[in-house]
Amino acid sequence: MFVKNCWHVAAWDHEIVEDKPFSRTIAGEAIVFWRTAERRIVAIRDRCVHRGAPLSMGRLEGDHIRCRYHGLAFDPDGRCVDIPSQSTIPDRARVQSYAVEVAHRWVWIWMGDPDLADRSLIPRTPWLDHPDWRCQPDYIRYDTSYLLIADNLLDFSHLPFLHPTSLGGSPDYAAVLPSIERIPGGVRLTKWVRGTAPPAYSAKFGGVGPDGLVDRWMFYEFLAPGILLMDSGMRPSGGEPNCAGEIAFRGCQALTAETIESTHYFFAHCHNFGIDDPSVTAEIHQGILTAFAEDQDMITAQQRNLALDPGFKMMPLAVDAALQQFRAIISKLLTEEAAS
Amino acid sequence: MFVKNCWHVAAWDHEIVEDKPFSRTIAGEAIVFWRTAERRIVAIRDRCVHRGAPLSMGRLEGDHIRCRYHGLAFDPDGRCVDIPSQSTIPDRARVQSYAVEVAHRWVWIWMGDPDLADRSLIPRTPWLDHPDWRCQPDYIRYDTSYLLIADNLLDFSHLPFLHPTSLGGSPDYAAVLPSIERIPGGVRLTKWVRGTAPPAYSAKFGGVGPDGLVDRWMFYEFLAPGILLMDSGMRPSGGEPNCAGEIAFRGCQALTAETIESTHYFFAHCHNFGIDDPSVTAEIHQGILTAFAEDQDMITAQQRNLALDPGFKMMPLAVDAALQQFRAIISKLLTEEAAS
Amino acid sequence: MFVKNCWHVAAWDHEIVEDKPFSRTIAGEAIVFWRTAERRIVAIRDRCVHRGAPLSMGRLEGDHIRCRYHGLAFDPDGRCVDIPSQSTIPDRARVQSYAVEVAHRWVWIWMGDPDLADRSLIPRTPWLDHPDWRCQPDYIRYDTSYLLIADNLLDFSHLPFLHPTSLGGSPDYAAVLPSIERIPGGVRLTKWVRGTAPPAYSAKFGGVGPDGLVDRWMFYEFLAPGILLMDSGMRPSGGEPNCAGEIAFRGCQALTAETIESTHYFFAHCHNFGIDDPSVTAEIHQGILTAFAEDQDMITAQQRNLALDPGFKMMPLAVDAALQQFRAIISKLLTEEAAS
Repeated sequence: MFVKNCWHVAAWDHEIVEDKPFSRTIAGEAIVFWRTAERRIVAIRDRCVHRGAPLSMGRLEGDHIRCRYHGLAFDPDGRCVDIPSQSTIPDRARVQSYAVEVAHRWVWIWMGDPDLADRSLIPRTPWLDHPDWRCQPDYIRYDTSYLLIADNLLDFSHLPFLHPTSLGGSPDYAAVLPSIERIPGGVRLTKWVRGTAPPAYSAKFGGVGPDGLVDRWMFYEFLAPGILLMDSGMRPSGGEPNCAGEIAFRGCQALTAETIESTHYFFAHCHNFGIDDPSVTAEIHQGILTAFAEDQDMITAQQRNLALDPGFKMMPLAVDAALQQFRAIISKLLTEEAAS
Repeated sequence: MFVKNCWHVAAWDHEIVEDKPFSRTIAGEAIVFWRTAERRIVAIRDRCVHRGAPLSMGRLEGDHIRCRYHGLAFDPDGRCVDIPSQSTIPDRARVQSYAVEVAHRWVWIWMGDPDLADRSLIPRTPWLDHPDWRCQPDYIRYDTSYLLIADNLLDFSHLPFLHPTSLGGSPDYAAVLPSIERIPGGVRLTKWVRGTAPPAYSAKFGGVGPDGLVDRWMFYEFLAPGILLMDSGMRPSGGEPNCAGEIAFRGCQALTAETIESTHYFFAHCHNFGIDDPSVTAEIHQGILTAFAEDQDMITAQQRNLALDPGFKMMPLAVDAALQQFRAIISKLLTEEAAS
Repeated sequence: MFVKNCWHVAAWDHEIVEDKPFSRTIAGEAIVFWRTAERRIVAIRDRCVHRGAPLSMGRLEGDHIRCRYHGLAFDPDGRCVDIPSQSTIPDRARVQSYAVEVAHRWVWIWMGDPDLADRSLIPRTPWLDHPDWRCQPDYIRYDTSYLLIADNLLDFSHLPFLHPTSLGGSPDYAAVLPSIERIPGGVRLTKWVRGTAPPAYSAKFGGVGPDGLVDRWMFYEFLAPGILLMDSGMRPSGGEPNCAGEIAFRGCQALTAETIESTHYFFAHCHNFGIDDPSVTAEIHQGILTAFAEDQDMITAQQRNLALDPGFKMMPLAVDAALQQFRAIISKLLTEEAAS
């Protein structure tokens, strides 16, 4: 179902405010997050041990959260610390707790065995809060499996067809296959398209040569459970690295399964130009939003089609090499976790 | 699934008007009610024997109801009395009929074997139409199992937490456990809380001593399938029965399963003070409505949580003694009915 | 589930316009229709062989349709003719195609083996575009099985009860049973009701004698999967064929299963009087629409009732002879197709 022994993005850090519990379902488990008195974010199962009421409807008392139904209180480790109607607290009155880390505006959660939660395994996204980069954080909820969205992100040959007026560029972009490399927990894709038309959403900001053409690159890692870290950009066709006008992006995207058929999608498209002009950031972001709406329409329609006939078999093409590798990685991780 | 051999509240008597069939699903069975020429309320299955059309879409003709689809007519016992397209009426052209009784504004229906429908078994709710008491009848529909609502009504330790500003009072109210007694078909709970803060919804009407405190009592029976008959009230702290200022309520509440996951909830909170001032009744009722909305939010969220993980096991506490006894009573009745 | 080796009505021909793919689900299969450069209507499965994306979201290029997701293009036979990201096209890159025929404004599709698609088997509906007849084409979507609607159309004894003020006429209409004849792929019903009250929707247009009564006829064929071809009308009571004032209709109705529990319903009620006065056509059509809304309310309520208790057994009456024969025909066809 879900790969659990890895870091999932649970939220943008600004989503979890002081003095208010925050509830989000991840990998099928309802989880309540809150900030302790020291503003540390903690997370436990959003379900009172007593009758299953959501703790997120309760109130915070210092570091503790108190259920609004019958008043049981729990500490950040999920231990029950008060049962108003009785003086003894059973040992097993304990809610599951989760390892949580904040890094570069993302709140990460480890859904599996807490003893395996190694902070050094968190994918690096320094551009999200680096002074040389700008971005607008955002979030979309999908009513589809995260795997269909991962498929989309692992094959950018769809750009000229699905996003002709936003991210796309010209059809030759689809004909250049990326090179693909296995890396721990995922794949790395490398693609250069030289002498091609620039995509609409960024053409006005630079990178375009006197002939109107660009050399466009896209290097990215895609890591379980669904983290996309992308270095992309363009420079005037035939130009050298860091030539005049070159513009670059660092895309950070994370797919987190909510349930089998719904997904949280966190994303920001960091850019290294016009960083003192908020209108540049807003315009870049709007271009991304337009394209992501096109993706969501298509993927949602695709999921409806697949649901109509569960027996349908997809037909892999050469462009699907990366997504097939990634699906194999996920399957292997699921098998390993099921066996352990 | 449903206990059938007992009286269920089907409706308030004013819901079933003359000249118009009334449909309600009870314990998974769609039922049509109407008033005969003598205004007697009768009830048969809301399903024509012919093609399954709802009879409630049809029209009344004297004591009979005629299906709007192909015109079959039925008497109050469910016997087919006319088939327009043929002259003979098969013996088996008979819709299931139900025993119905009206008592104190509630319409009661016996969902099981009609031969066992003993009117003397109807729980007594004389306060609903007694001249010394006043109330405002009301109804809420829940999208949850009736059992979760019964749980709520069998453990009032939730009052200070879920209803702090309406029914609640102070946290010490939760710490006093009621005494519990088995009675035929249910349980009786008895609870006194002395020298406590009065609940907000009734404090202004009396019962409060010079020190601002009250002695608060709550005696109630909870009977299968989900009938709550409550004698509650408060008097100035340390006062004697019927002392100056004592105020009392007789709460009448009935849970009737609509389906496995939906419930009809009929209720009225009768009071013995200010009975000539309709604004008092309205204000008492509004206090109840506010609290019941808090209950419904919580129980609906609880049901969503339980649905997310059917494997979750609740953890019984001392306060759950009554609800566990009641669930055991329901299970025993279900087992007996399944065996008979 | 669905009878496939027969012609289904897929659309009115005006629904499928030039330059725009048209999607409709029939018998559980999503299908995309479009017009070729020569305006011929073609149909293939609305699902790209690659990842299952709906082709109807794509664009037309001459006779071809190109998927909007990754750009694969298909010809009207469903053969893949272009894969932008690779130079070779696998033989099995082929989408299922369907035989399609247009006849008298209806677009017919053969859902089964294309080799069996014999145009001569298409039911004849010349009145839909004949200069001596007029009608207003229309369409309703049902959230019920097509079988419940077929039941309705095979037993018009419901007219005086369900449609008393539109199609109905007087109760004696229900008492006259039609004669029923087996014909290839269906049944033929013949019914005369003499000296009866005229139905409201057409009484003003003629057929009524000086005594206010009419002789009313209704001859129709009902063919798998759900095609109704009806010759109906009325003349002054006791009159001869083609007497003064006689008015006639040719009703053309088609039920096409969308899924197991939803249905496309195409219909037009052709008339041979007032053909140069559009208001006559509009008024006839409105009478039909009113009646069809009454049918839809009833059949939808019936389906809800049946869903509440799948164990319910209908009780056949004499009026159900035709619908039982038709259900037997459908069962026989399904069995034959399953075995072949």
